[in-house]
Amino acid sequence: MFALRSQAFKSAAYLLKTQTINAGFHTGATCYGAKVAVVLSGCGVYDGTEIHEASAILVHLSRGGAEVQMYAPDVSQMHVIDHSKGQPAEESRNVLTESARIARGNVIDLAKLSVTNHDAVIFPGGFGAAKNLSTFAVDGPDFKVNQDVERVVKEFHKAGKPIGLCCISPVLAAKLLPGVEVTGPPQGGRRGGRWPYAGTAQAIKALGARHCVKEVTEVHVDQKNKVVTSPAFMCDTQLHHIFDGIGAMVTDVLKLSGK
Amino acid sequence: MFALRSQAFKSAAYLLKTQTINAGFHTGATCYGAKVAVVLSGCGVYDGTEIHEASAILVHLSRGGAEVQMYAPDVSQMHVIDHSKGQPAEESRNVLTESARIARGNVIDLAKLSVTNHDAVIFPGGFGAAKNLSTFAVDGPDFKVNQDVERVVKEFHKAGKPIGLCCISPVLAAKLLPGVEVTGPPQGGRRGGRWPYAGTAQAIKALGARHCVKEVTEVHVDQKNKVVTSPAFMCDTQLHHIFDGIGAMVTDVLKLSGK
Repeated sequence: MFALRSQAFKSAAYLLKTQTINAGFHTGATCYGAKVAVVLSGCGVYDGTEIHEASAILVHLSRGGAEVQMYAPDVSQMHVIDHSKGQPAEESRNVLTESARIARGNVIDLAKLSVTNHDAVIFPGGFGAAKNLSTFAVDGPDFKVNQDVERVVKEFHKAGKPIGLCCISPVLAAKLLPGVEVTGPPQGGRRGGRWPYAGTAQAIKALGARHCVKEVTEVHVDQKNKVVTSPAFMCDTQLHHIFDGIGAMVTDVLKLSGK
Repeated sequence: MFALRSQAFKSAAYLLKTQTINAGFHTGATCYGAKVAVVLSGCGVYDGTEIHEASAILVHLSRGGAEVQMYAPDVSQMHVIDHSKGQPAEESRNVLTESARIARGNVIDLAKLSVTNHDAVIFPGGFGAAKNLSTFAVDGPDFKVNQDVERVVKEFHKAGKPIGLCCISPVLAAKLLPGVEVTGPPQGGRRGGRWPYAGTAQAIKALGARHCVKEVTEVHVDQKNKVVTSPAFMCDTQLHHIFDGIGAMVTDVLKLSGK
């Protein structure tokens, strides 16, 4: 791992000469609780994983004593958004490669995620979930889901292992798990209001799922399906409230994992 | 702002049709405390801002009631690292454009940062601070600093406004503020140990600064210079400890701002 990392700095002569390169997240503890898979979809709210949701999930999992492995599909992004302009850029990026920025290098192809190795799975939000993990951003309720995402969600569900989702990601559960209960924005939220993505509520209902209105610091737990959801950046509010809502989601996921 | 954002989704027909696009961070509160500038250097630990350090800073600033504006220099990155392979990639990216991924779009050219508009400034770490904000990664103690970074650090210092830095970023203060006291890893940290970047300690001393050894959850406050530093990912430990150390840094920066 160190050898691999050090190649990142072959142009960085000073640091290469004097310093060992650290990579990934700390995995030295010997007394872990739940083994949790986190599924990323790129790096950046408009074409990938929402960075602050992913980071909040990782902080809360760390505090909860979980052993984390991140995964992402090895596919091209739907497109690349220049986040400074809010416009598509003329380039292509790979979902796994960009997800590695959040994972500090330590991310594995989603095709290799086996339910037997984990006690729970969590999907952060960001438009990557609606553009790279599925086609929801383009197709609405008729969307398709990446086949590995579909396999993973159905396998964890069948195994009775908890699934956590936030922001836009609950639409994945709404599509794949009939009758599931998930959070979404209140229907009829106003343009420029606290819940700017209110149209998602209709989509969740159109998929046959139950749409549960919750505040940003709350979660909804579908006990039967072991699905835990939280609004996160669906709500236009201060970041620490989003952080706390994600903390509540992670806590309930870990609780349901029984570890 | 909404019109600008909506262009990001012209290929995302469904979301464009049914949803308003939210951007940036919530700025609707009317009762803010300190006005804090956060200076980014890209998006990803190996060629930009360390994502989890930036996110932790923003969460703690949000909880502390600060009004935040993010900035980044409008320059090319030193290089692009494929974080999944730990190797340079054959492409180029712009520091401001990539920083916008962390800022959810709301980032301003560092050249426009005026000390009169802010009560404090914070520099997250990540190799971007040593590759894009300065040449420390390549040149070691003889490094050069981006001219706007130099201007900003010196202006805040002259105005008696606090400067927060973490991880590798304290080398910027060590270079620009003679005799400043900053955190760094303990000298002689071992390869593969808890402090893998130990060589930085020598560089800090070589610059004439005072190197203060602190645990990852601690900060050092140089009261005279109003410089607050914390080790963050300089220490190979669990993420929530890094989050807490950054929280302590933010708390002390806000305290020193007097707002």
